[in-house]
Amino acid sequence: MQDLLQFYLVTRNQTEALCKPLKTEDYTPQSAEFASPPKWHLAHTTWFFEEMILKSYVENYQVFDDSYSFLFNSYYNSIGERIERKNRGLITRPSIEKVYAYREYIDKHMMELLKGTVSADLKKLTILGINHEQQHQELLITDLKYTFSCNPIYPKYSETNYISTKKQTSDWLEVPEGIYNIGHAGNGFCFDNELGRHRVFLEPYKISKTLVTNGDFIEFINDKGYQQAKYWLDDAWYWLQQNQVKSPLYWKLVNGVWHQYTLSGLQPVNPDAILTHVSYYEAAAYAFWAGYRLPTEFEWEVASKELDWGTVWEWTNSAYLPYPNFKIAKGAVGEYNGKFMVNLMVLRGASSATAKNHSRFTYRNFFSPNTQWQFSGIRLAK
Amino acid sequence: MQDLLQFYLVTRNQTEALCKPLKTEDYTPQSAEFASPPKWHLAHTTWFFEEMILKSYVENYQVFDDSYSFLFNSYYNSIGERIERKNRGLITRPSIEKVYAYREYIDKHMMELLKGTVSADLKKLTILGINHEQQHQELLITDLKYTFSCNPIYPKYSETNYISTKKQTSDWLEVPEGIYNIGHAGNGFCFDNELGRHRVFLEPYKISKTLVTNGDFIEFINDKGYQQAKYWLDDAWYWLQQNQVKSPLYWKLVNGVWHQYTLSGLQPVNPDAILTHVSYYEAAAYAFWAGYRLPTEFEWEVASKELDWGTVWEWTNSAYLPYPNFKIAKGAVGEYNGKFMVNLMVLRGASSATAKNHSRFTYRNFFSPNTQWQFSGIRLAK
Amino acid sequence: MQDLLQFYLVTRNQTEALCKPLKTEDYTPQSAEFASPPKWHLAHTTWFFEEMILKSYVENYQVFDDSYSFLFNSYYNSIGERIERKNRGLITRPSIEKVYAYREYIDKHMMELLKGTVSADLKKLTILGINHEQQHQELLITDLKYTFSCNPIYPKYSETNYISTKKQTSDWLEVPEGIYNIGHAGNGFCFDNELGRHRVFLEPYKISKTLVTNGDFIEFINDKGYQQAKYWLDDAWYWLQQNQVKSPLYWKLVNGVWHQYTLSGLQPVNPDAILTHVSYYEAAAYAFWAGYRLPTEFEWEVASKELDWGTVWEWTNSAYLPYPNFKIAKGAVGEYNGKFMVNLMVLRGASSATAKNHSRFTYRNFFSPNTQWQFSGIRLAK
Amino acid sequence: MQDLLQFYLVTRNQTEALCKPLKTEDYTPQSAEFASPPKWHLAHTTWFFEEMILKSYVENYQVFDDSYSFLFNSYYNSIGERIERKNRGLITRPSIEKVYAYREYIDKHMMELLKGTVSADLKKLTILGINHEQQHQELLITDLKYTFSCNPIYPKYSETNYISTKKQTSDWLEVPEGIYNIGHAGNGFCFDNELGRHRVFLEPYKISKTLVTNGDFIEFINDKGYQQAKYWLDDAWYWLQQNQVKSPLYWKLVNGVWHQYTLSGLQPVNPDAILTHVSYYEAAAYAFWAGYRLPTEFEWEVASKELDWGTVWEWTNSAYLPYPNFKIAKGAVGEYNGKFMVNLMVLRGASSATAKNHSRFTYRNFFSPNTQWQFSGIRLAK
Repeated sequence: MQDLLQFYLVTRNQTEALCKPLKTEDYTPQSAEFASPPKWHLAHTTWFFEEMILKSYVENYQVFDDSYSFLFNSYYNSIGERIERKNRGLITRPSIEKVYAYREYIDKHMMELLKGTVSADLKKLTILGINHEQQHQELLITDLKYTFSCNPIYPKYSETNYISTKKQTSDWLEVPEGIYNIGHAGNGFCFDNELGRHRVFLEPYKISKTLVTNGDFIEFINDKGYQQAKYWLDDAWYWLQQNQVKSPLYWKLVNGVWHQYTLSGLQPVNPDAILTHVSYYEAAAYAFWAGYRLPTEFEWEVASKELDWGTVWEWTNSAYLPYPNFKIAKGAVGEYNGKFMVNLMVLRGASSATAKNHSRFTYRNFFSPNTQWQFSGIRLAK
Repeated sequence: MQDLLQFYLVTRNQTEALCKPLKTEDYTPQSAEFASPPKWHLAHTTWFFEEMILKSYVENYQVFDDSYSFLFNSYYNSIGERIERKNRGLITRPSIEKVYAYREYIDKHMMELLKGTVSADLKKLTILGINHEQQHQELLITDLKYTFSCNPIYPKYSETNYISTKKQTSDWLEVPEGIYNIGHAGNGFCFDNELGRHRVFLEPYKISKTLVTNGDFIEFINDKGYQQAKYWLDDAWYWLQQNQVKSPLYWKLVNGVWHQYTLSGLQPVNPDAILTHVSYYEAAAYAFWAGYRLPTEFEWEVASKELDWGTVWEWTNSAYLPYPNFKIAKGAVGEYNGKFMVNLMVLRGASSATAKNHSRFTYRNFFSPNTQWQFSGIRLAK
Repeated sequence: MQDLLQFYLVTRNQTEALCKPLKTEDYTPQSAEFASPPKWHLAHTTWFFEEMILKSYVENYQVFDDSYSFLFNSYYNSIGERIERKNRGLITRPSIEKVYAYREYIDKHMMELLKGTVSADLKKLTILGINHEQQHQELLITDLKYTFSCNPIYPKYSETNYISTKKQTSDWLEVPEGIYNIGHAGNGFCFDNELGRHRVFLEPYKISKTLVTNGDFIEFINDKGYQQAKYWLDDAWYWLQQNQVKSPLYWKLVNGVWHQYTLSGLQPVNPDAILTHVSYYEAAAYAFWAGYRLPTEFEWEVASKELDWGTVWEWTNSAYLPYPNFKIAKGAVGEYNGKFMVNLMVLRGASSATAKNHSRFTYRNFFSPNTQWQFSGIRLAK
Repeated sequence: MQDLLQFYLVTRNQTEALCKPLKTEDYTPQSAEFASPPKWHLAHTTWFFEEMILKSYVENYQVFDDSYSFLFNSYYNSIGERIERKNRGLITRPSIEKVYAYREYIDKHMMELLKGTVSADLKKLTILGINHEQQHQELLITDLKYTFSCNPIYPKYSETNYISTKKQTSDWLEVPEGIYNIGHAGNGFCFDNELGRHRVFLEPYKISKTLVTNGDFIEFINDKGYQQAKYWLDDAWYWLQQNQVKSPLYWKLVNGVWHQYTLSGLQPVNPDAILTHVSYYEAAAYAFWAGYRLPTEFEWEVASKELDWGTVWEWTNSAYLPYPNFKIAKGAVGEYNGKFMVNLMVLRGASSATAKNHSRFTYRNFFSPNTQWQFSGIRLAK
């Protein structure tokens, strides 16, 4: 399985490449319950291979360290006790050196395993593990950005600031009514939540070919969008008041000019750049103010081939719910996606922080409607 | 408009009839942020007619009391300031006598108004006000039950306990795939959220002709359903742990036997009676444990003509979201339903506490998935 | 024991007299965890006689209602379970009529008992019960004021507003150093916390003969006293920020003029009247701003004979701690005062709401330093 | 000023010596709002010298880094904005290397300054800065212990576990009544809160010559001390229930045997060792259970010459309040101690983590009564 092995190694190396700019101090702290430390991402993705694959597929497999199952399990209740999510930043030991040794150890065993005969099951789990690690590559970036943003000296992570300034020409795509197929088809990898493939009927609709820009959103702010209840869902208004939200995340006024913290440091907001770091609440309020609405995830998927997407995750007006005939896998792997199917909204597309080879037009990302720390933006529909 | 006037008067009398068993002390206190006092329901429904109708349709209309707009507005931001929701139980004055005088005053003016020429707009608003009051009749009962349940002496409200013991014979209804029409049709009254009428495609499904009983649910409890994370959504498990939920609301073990507080007092749980007072979280966990799922609201609506419903609200697996072409009305009335369309789940049907003439198979009730205090139960699908 | 009986009856009648202006609706609701409803005060003081006296001293005594011990016990852990403090306002039943019947029943039994031979123990407990009821008379007033103040229509309770406008002439009392006796002496009644009588050494000090007025305090406000951290204790500053405190309790600016809610309704603040409804935090900040300090409880007690006190409780700079040789009584009565001796500050004197015959210069009142809802004011020392 | 310079350098080196066993990862995270990271202690103590001394005493002094005033100010409101206390653990940059460079830079300037003519004021501030750093040496140890204890693998910091096993022989010291002098005397250094020296009268008392041991306290646990409300102050009982406290901090049962996390790792509890890591609440409950009480801070100070103290801080029954004639210093230094004088209890003595040359029998340590993470124990009185 030369290809699988290579896919594995490329992905594993990429995770470590993302950590190159970090200092040792950056690996451990946790800035919010939702934002895990780099060390944790490095170890947790590794633990996934050990727990789900090596323990079962390697005879007499010697666990690297017994305590890691407790320390680096994320949410798999069926595997047993785990450290509280909010305490991930207190694990100063093992040191980062030790965690890199853990990665090396697991990689060595995975390489041996993948050089031999690879059963269909093993292949499937390995691909799942790789995709899982790709997901954490994006989280590593977004979580790091959040932590750095809490530091008043605004550290710089890289030269590229992850903000797209792609040129866009405003236009609408019209889609006629009809029965459409939704969900993943074919033999390629997909997550369980992209199945079962099924039919939906769509009434005719229009969807914007462009994404909302910073300049567009500044108009909303200037029109006192954040001060008027009438644009906001009831929960959104409460959230906004409780948290004193007055702009997208990372924005601040410096001498009357909007700036934003980026992974290249604090920079003036570029009005032509694509808006990002807004919550569903802000996306819905903006759409209402503008006289439009957000597309459903089905409208998005059907139109996706004609759209230019991939720079920001796009909030849809669909709640995260199972497709017809959605199946939950047996065992711990079954906890992957299904148990989150309530209280969350679906985002479609991908972002500038998404791993390469990790985008699909059937991909269903999902977060709580108050989430701002992902690279999330707005596309309108009507 | 004799019919309209009669509809108005019957509804208004019915609200007061529901209060007959109350003592003066029962009218004022509020037991939870979600559970308003009877006095508040009596006054708020009245205020709705004054604010939305009399102020506009009666020349030189004299407001009954200026402070009532502040005291008895519920959530209409566009109308101005209002008392905080959690403080509704502190309004010891006006006295209940005064609130009944308020009702009389409004009724007198509404009667005069409805005896004259009734424009289409006025008719529409009056019917909305009546339906609004009917909704509050159910809330009055469910809120009162919650307040009484906080009193260790378990007061009795009425002879009937609102728990259905209707005989049921287990059976499944099969529905073939196809395009179906969803939403309200015709000229009768409906709420804004039942529109626009539109088409959905349904994959083939089966839906139970019966509702889950207390006996069924006791099996789930006895199988340690509340103790095993694998049956529960992630948010549900957190909710259950935080609140130490171990049974449906109002249930308690007395010498090893399940009892429940009912509006007739504390009574043993009848295993043949239809289960009620469960949250969406419990409904979903039960369905998963039983090897089934909950129906979507669309599946429910399509099947509804063949189902026996109306004793408990039925949780569906649909999030509360706008239908295609959903329109928000102009003005304060526009705040009626639309602004709640996030984070809630849809319930279909009606309950033993629902007002007569207030049920429709297109009716969309909606509550947070942790809600237990409504008369809410479970129907399975697969 | 004619005197004791009369003392008992006068006190019991006085409690009911205080309730004369109330409507039935006013008896039940609870506006804060610290503010109990009138019904609760009426019943709890009655329960005290039943629980501590009648159950032990009357043979075959028939409890009025078994559930009352649960409903109307305040904090006596040794007596068993009790309703959660924050839920006292949900006890709509028993009705207030029933609670008055309870009082009558207990009074009848107490009268019989006190007409017979009264042992020293019984006398002691009866006097304790009477004093306990007198304490609740003051709480009844202060709690009611708090509840009424939550009602935007500001109900009026009585013609007298409980705010003292006594004329004062500024002057200082000098007290020389020396050993002084502190604590209750003689055979009259006192609470356990006024004992043991003991000696303290006081360095020489001066104490003001007058109390701080509203006018004095407005100077502090106008000097931006609430906006400058330097005047405030660290905990005080945090409290002030969290609760957005900007004035004494019940004060509000109406068109630029300070008004206060009083038991006679909303009234302009009289600058010559004695300041009340300030917390220890505000008292300490004011004293610091003014260049003085608060007296200790020992300084207060020693000086008290030369002072004019009794219109407001006076915050001292003493924490509420046991005197040397303080003894905790056996049984439930032992929970009376001792278990609160941490985190609280002592107030000395009495207020316009204190029951007659319930003041002593050795009396130690005590509340949390953030307490505003008592009639509490400021006397300076240096 | 050779002595002062040497005192300065010894202290500064000692802080760094305490950090020798740390890995880079250990320097940054914060495990609780009260427990600051080592990096913060290293930088904050350094900032104190820069802010309070170098800025004023060195002409044209060049600040090391402008942002440090914001990052490493603790609570001096008068100096300006500062990072929120709970976010100290998110300061991954500056790196620890940079913080050591900061220390070197400040030390270089302080050395130059102290080699020249040293005014009385400069000397006073330098000695304050040294004592301040000594205080943080103890906090560095106690905070680190708390952070390490949150890590399920229980890291080891040093060979010595900071738990005293000194032999003790039970005995009581009798102290006669009399007027005693309290507070610091002489020209040596003391904190502002140890002044003004004043007289107190003490009633006769007895104070134990020994400290409570682990074995003593296990008796209290075994007698169900943590399960019976009667031993506890009311606030204490609430605290215990809310936090499910069942033993001193760091204790856990392993196979029925009490173990404790120490700075040498998890170890069995030695019954002969001196008890530590109990709160005031536990100290008071233990004393009550044992039939004794805690001494006041005055009783402690008077007896101290005859006592063997210094292994654990000893809770007293005195609230932390100003002495007569307590003076608050002008400027930022005035915020040192005075503003904490409410809601805290005094501890006397010193602990095994206290810096050498930092103990005095007049020293007043103070913490909230629920504090367990300091090395705090129990001495009885009667």
